[in-house]
Amino acid sequence: MLITLTTDFGASSPYVAAMKGVIFSINPEASVVDLSHTIPPQDILAGAQVLGDVTPYFPAGTIHVAVIDPGVGTERKIIYAEIDDHRYVCPDNGLLARLAARSTPLKIVEITCEELYHHPVSHTFHGRDIMAPVAAHLSRGFDPDQLGPTRRRWTPLPWSGATKLANRIEGEIVFVDSFGNLVTDIDRNMLVGVPTDDSVTVRSGGHETCGIFTTYGEQPPMTLIALVGSNDQLELAIVDDSAKMMLGLEVGEKVEVSW
Amino acid sequence: MLITLTTDFGASSPYVAAMKGVIFSINPEASVVDLSHTIPPQDILAGAQVLGDVTPYFPAGTIHVAVIDPGVGTERKIIYAEIDDHRYVCPDNGLLARLAARSTPLKIVEITCEELYHHPVSHTFHGRDIMAPVAAHLSRGFDPDQLGPTRRRWTPLPWSGATKLANRIEGEIVFVDSFGNLVTDIDRNMLVGVPTDDSVTVRSGGHETCGIFTTYGEQPPMTLIALVGSNDQLELAIVDDSAKMMLGLEVGEKVEVSW
Amino acid sequence: MLITLTTDFGASSPYVAAMKGVIFSINPEASVVDLSHTIPPQDILAGAQVLGDVTPYFPAGTIHVAVIDPGVGTERKIIYAEIDDHRYVCPDNGLLARLAARSTPLKIVEITCEELYHHPVSHTFHGRDIMAPVAAHLSRGFDPDQLGPTRRRWTPLPWSGATKLANRIEGEIVFVDSFGNLVTDIDRNMLVGVPTDDSVTVRSGGHETCGIFTTYGEQPPMTLIALVGSNDQLELAIVDDSAKMMLGLEVGEKVEVSW
Repeated sequence: MLITLTTDFGASSPYVAAMKGVIFSINPEASVVDLSHTIPPQDILAGAQVLGDVTPYFPAGTIHVAVIDPGVGTERKIIYAEIDDHRYVCPDNGLLARLAARSTPLKIVEITCEELYHHPVSHTFHGRDIMAPVAAHLSRGFDPDQLGPTRRRWTPLPWSGATKLANRIEGEIVFVDSFGNLVTDIDRNMLVGVPTDDSVTVRSGGHETCGIFTTYGEQPPMTLIALVGSNDQLELAIVDDSAKMMLGLEVGEKVEVSW
Repeated sequence: MLITLTTDFGASSPYVAAMKGVIFSINPEASVVDLSHTIPPQDILAGAQVLGDVTPYFPAGTIHVAVIDPGVGTERKIIYAEIDDHRYVCPDNGLLARLAARSTPLKIVEITCEELYHHPVSHTFHGRDIMAPVAAHLSRGFDPDQLGPTRRRWTPLPWSGATKLANRIEGEIVFVDSFGNLVTDIDRNMLVGVPTDDSVTVRSGGHETCGIFTTYGEQPPMTLIALVGSNDQLELAIVDDSAKMMLGLEVGEKVEVSW
Repeated sequence: MLITLTTDFGASSPYVAAMKGVIFSINPEASVVDLSHTIPPQDILAGAQVLGDVTPYFPAGTIHVAVIDPGVGTERKIIYAEIDDHRYVCPDNGLLARLAARSTPLKIVEITCEELYHHPVSHTFHGRDIMAPVAAHLSRGFDPDQLGPTRRRWTPLPWSGATKLANRIEGEIVFVDSFGNLVTDIDRNMLVGVPTDDSVTVRSGGHETCGIFTTYGEQPPMTLIALVGSNDQLELAIVDDSAKMMLGLEVGEKVEVSW
C-alpha cells in the first residue's frame, strides 16, 4: 500500500526519515514515496496547491500524509479525509481546500484514536508522532471509522481564488516551480472563451505580454510568455530562463488577463 | 531488509544513487531509505547528532550506512557496530559516538573482508565501493563476525557535551534544522529540576529569553523562545521565523541556561 | 523491476512525484529510484555526464528515464535505447551521447506508441505524460520493438571531448560535485603514460598545481590538488574545502595538463 509524504521540512530532512522509520516499524511492507518536502515553511496555500496538482496522479487508495503544520501543539485538529478515491491525513488547516473545492469529500474524521500514536507524543512534531503512525495503521487495513468522530466541515483556505469578469480575469501567483515559472490560480476552465492571440494581454507587477501559448519552444530565448502549463493553470515564464529571477515576482503578486 | 543512507553528498546527489545501484545489484530485494544527505560537508558532529536522533525510530535490525568521511583514502578504519538492536556501517571517526554514549555497543568489527567490496576500490569513494556492498551483503544474511576482526573501542568525538553546574548549564548549538531552529546539546534529562518559568534565562551570542516552553504556539510570532524540541533537546526558536537568520547564530555557539 | 529517474526539476520537486504517481498507477510493483534531480536546468551535457557515471552501477535490465528536455513541445523525438544491458527512455537531444561513445547502442527506437501515453498529453511535461508511462509499461514486460520505428542514429552532444597531444592534454570542466570538486572530461585512460610526479602541471583559469594524486588526504587542508576521482576522471580539488568557491571556476572552463 502506497503512502506519500508532503512536508515543509526541506530537501533530505532527517525529520522526514523519522516519519518513515515510524511507518516501517508499524508496516514493514509499506511503500513510501516523497511527494515534496520543499513546500515553503508554513505555507499552507502552496501545500494545498501541490496536493491538488500531484495526488490525482497516484493510484486510487493511496494514503497522502501532509505536514505543513504551523499550529502544531495548539488546539488545531488532525483529520482523515476521503476525496475522489484518495485518502488524506493532515492538520485541519486548509491543506485540503483545493482538492475539496473540486470534489466534495466523501468522509471526514477527526483523529482522536490515541492508542495508534507513537508515544510519548511530542508537542512539536505530530507528523512523526500522530500522522505517520495513523497512516501506517491505515495501510495495514485499520478501519477509518474507528479513528475518531465523523465531521461535516473542514477548515477553508483564506484564499478567494481567481475571478472572471466580462473582459478580464483577476488572479494571483500561487506557486513558483523549480524553473522559476510563475504559476497562477487561473485554470484552463476559466480561460474557455478567452482569445489566445495577440488580442489578449497578461499583466503582473508592471510586466506584460500578449498572447497565450502552449509550449515554451514557440518563442525565442529570454522572451516573457504566458502559457497554460502541465498542471492546467496559467503561468508566466521566460523562455530558457527563470521568470522569478528576471521579473522579481513572488507568490501573492496579482495577475490580470484582459482582452 | 531495510538499509538507510546518511551522507554529506547534498540533496539529490548522483553519488547517493551510485551507492543504491551497488546495493540493488547485490540484493534486488533490499529496501533503501534516505535518512539525510544534507549533513554539512565533513561535519562528523552533525552526522553523529542525526544518527542519534533518527535511527532509533526505525525497526530493530535496520542497517544504517553513514558516509561522512573526511579521512577517506587515509589509514582510518571502517567499522560495523551493533547498538540497541540496530546495525551500523561507517568510518570509525566518531559518527557513532552519540549513540554509543547512550548505550554500549554489543559488537564492533573492523571491516577488512575485501571479497565483499566493489572492485576496483577507488581511493575517494568508500561509501560506494566498501560500505554499500558490505551493507547489501549483510541485508542478505552475511554473518557480521566474518567481516573482520572484533574490536573493543571506537573513536570518540572531539566534543565534551554540555555541563551542568549548581545553578546553570553550559552547552552549545550542535544542529540547525530546516526551519532555522537552533538545537543545543542540552537534553531533557539535564533539565530535570531546572525551573521552566520566568526565573530561568537562556542566553546565546548576546541574545536572551526567559522561560522554557513546550510548543511554538505559546508565544506570539517573531518572539524568541527556548523549548525542548521533538528530539528531547533544548532549542532556541523564533516563532514563525528562522532563529538562525534572525539571530545570526551558528553551530558551535555557546548556550547558557541559568536560574 | 527497477526504474531510475534523472531530471532537472530540483531536489524534492513535486513534478518528480507526479511521474512516480503515473508509474505506480500502471505498475504498482515497480521500484523507483531517484538518480538525481539537481541537474542544472536544461544542461544536457551535465545530464549526459551523470547518466554515464552512475547508471552502470545499477543491475542489468534497469530502465533509466532522463528528463532534461529544453525542446519539450517542439519536434524533438523521444527515444528508447539499449546500451550495455541497460535501458534508457529520454528525449533524443544528446543525453545518451556519453554512454553511446563508450559502447554502441544495441537498439534505438523512436517512441510513437501513443496508446501507452498518459492522456491528455500536455505540451510541456512529456516526462509525466510520455516517458513515465512508457517506462512503466516496459517494466511490466511491454515489447520495446512495439514502441515505434527502429532508428540507426541518435543526436550527438555539441561537445568535442578532451584532446591528447604530444606533451599535453586539453580538456574542460564538465561537472561540479556537491563538495565543489571540479570534474574534467579528461579520463583515466587518457592519462596512461602521463607522469604523476612533480613534472606534470595542471592549469585552469590562471591557477596551477603540480602532480596528480590518488586521495584528498595526501596533502594538507586548503591545498589545490589534481587527482583522478571515483568516476575515473581528472578533477581539481581543494583539500577540505570547495575548489569551485575558492577558485571561482565553472563548467566550461578549459583545463590543461602538460609535462
